[in-house]
Amino acid sequence: MILVADNIQITNKTIENALKTMRPDPIQEMAKQCEAAGAEMLDINSGPLSRDPEAKMTFLVEAVQEVSSLPILIDTANSKAVEAGLRANKKTAVINGFSLEPAKLESILPLAKKFDVDIIGYLLYPNSHVPPDESERLNVAMELYNEFQNAGLDKDRLIIDPVVVPVLWENGNIQAMEVMSVIKTLPDLLGFDVRTIAGVSNLTTGKGNKEKKLVLEKAYLPMLASAGLTMALLNVFHSETIRTARACNALADPMIFTWEAL
Amino acid sequence: MILVADNIQITNKTIENALKTMRPDPIQEMAKQCEAAGAEMLDINSGPLSRDPEAKMTFLVEAVQEVSSLPILIDTANSKAVEAGLRANKKTAVINGFSLEPAKLESILPLAKKFDVDIIGYLLYPNSHVPPDESERLNVAMELYNEFQNAGLDKDRLIIDPVVVPVLWENGNIQAMEVMSVIKTLPDLLGFDVRTIAGVSNLTTGKGNKEKKLVLEKAYLPMLASAGLTMALLNVFHSETIRTARACNALADPMIFTWEAL
Repeated sequence: MILVADNIQITNKTIENALKTMRPDPIQEMAKQCEAAGAEMLDINSGPLSRDPEAKMTFLVEAVQEVSSLPILIDTANSKAVEAGLRANKKTAVINGFSLEPAKLESILPLAKKFDVDIIGYLLYPNSHVPPDESERLNVAMELYNEFQNAGLDKDRLIIDPVVVPVLWENGNIQAMEVMSVIKTLPDLLGFDVRTIAGVSNLTTGKGNKEKKLVLEKAYLPMLASAGLTMALLNVFHSETIRTARACNALADPMIFTWEAL
Repeated sequence: MILVADNIQITNKTIENALKTMRPDPIQEMAKQCEAAGAEMLDINSGPLSRDPEAKMTFLVEAVQEVSSLPILIDTANSKAVEAGLRANKKTAVINGFSLEPAKLESILPLAKKFDVDIIGYLLYPNSHVPPDESERLNVAMELYNEFQNAGLDKDRLIIDPVVVPVLWENGNIQAMEVMSVIKTLPDLLGFDVRTIAGVSNLTTGKGNKEKKLVLEKAYLPMLASAGLTMALLNVFHSETIRTARACNALADPMIFTWEAL
């Protein structure tokens, strides 16, 4: 399980202000902290970037890549920003992401082909609503994969996000368990060893005691790991969650176990 | 996932001394503490009881049942002690357990029929060695189930222990992962929803830093839970592991999630 930091995001005040004033330092500081905390990839969630999308995303990508060699995920629904980010990229970039939403199929999905990069596909309806259960998620996966193939992309470029929803949603816990069945079923359904990513922080979004949220997150992550999740998108500053992830990897690693792995 | 305390065991000095001197208080104190810590069943691991097996197990069962209504697991390889424990039992008892070992098939398995109680079957070879991989464990499961049926027992009485081995064994981590596949496969293999139990403490037996052991245990338990484990045998005084188990149950519970469940 590869750990992807979700920390560099516009909802973080520090990042928001740094982006507003185009000051790279706070962003670079955060990127370095994420790497030190165990991040193996960095998600750059810029929000929609309604003003100056190209300049802003170029700034973000350059700022991060000046201080970190980690692969980046370009996380925005703004296709202009995605394209600018891919142009600015000097290392490894992943598009995060597309869905059945027509605008994304039309303007974001082709960028994966154009720039020959990996792209994350979300199991969401065309209107961006979350499918209510496992079988609907799998239906969406089939449609998504068709669109992906129609765009002329090689299957190895696809990463699927089954969409973790907040546990506080009416059936959030049931969906949390179904997400694992989806992860297990996808390779058989699509006929190849498709990679997966899940937004772990989504599970505990909303009301709730912070400490209990961490307990829940630490319980859910090993379940995702044993379901075969490829990449976990999470807050890498949750040090106990990261230790849990290391323990999962030490268990799943076919090498001889040593305590040093934890 | 039902939490079974493995704390009442002869390798604990307090329990060993109490049993030697037939003093019920320390055992009763431990039983109450286990219940307070979240135990839903109590394993009574008396060791082989080479001297006075009947009197010792009778003493243990009576001591525990004087202060706790929780179901007990009678955990000894001594069939005389098992029988005495079942005679002394006034509540719910489970035999822990039998395997393909000839002496156990002959003298312990029939007690489940005689006393009409649940019995745990270990996926071990007749010489008590641990099968090296998943497919061997499944072969043993088939043989074990045959013996179980030949003893005239109803399938609902069977609980299977796939045998967690120490992660420090040469391929311990691989076996830890295979145990989960076994748990998932057993219902299909045997053709019914067989219950399972796993000794979680076994994973971290041996050398190692205590705190790292807890991290590993907390990572492994949710994996077992999502594999569908029915009962987890563990040290209920590991409060963070118990909280993790509660979080797993809150996720797996089809009821609406609330933070109060954690």
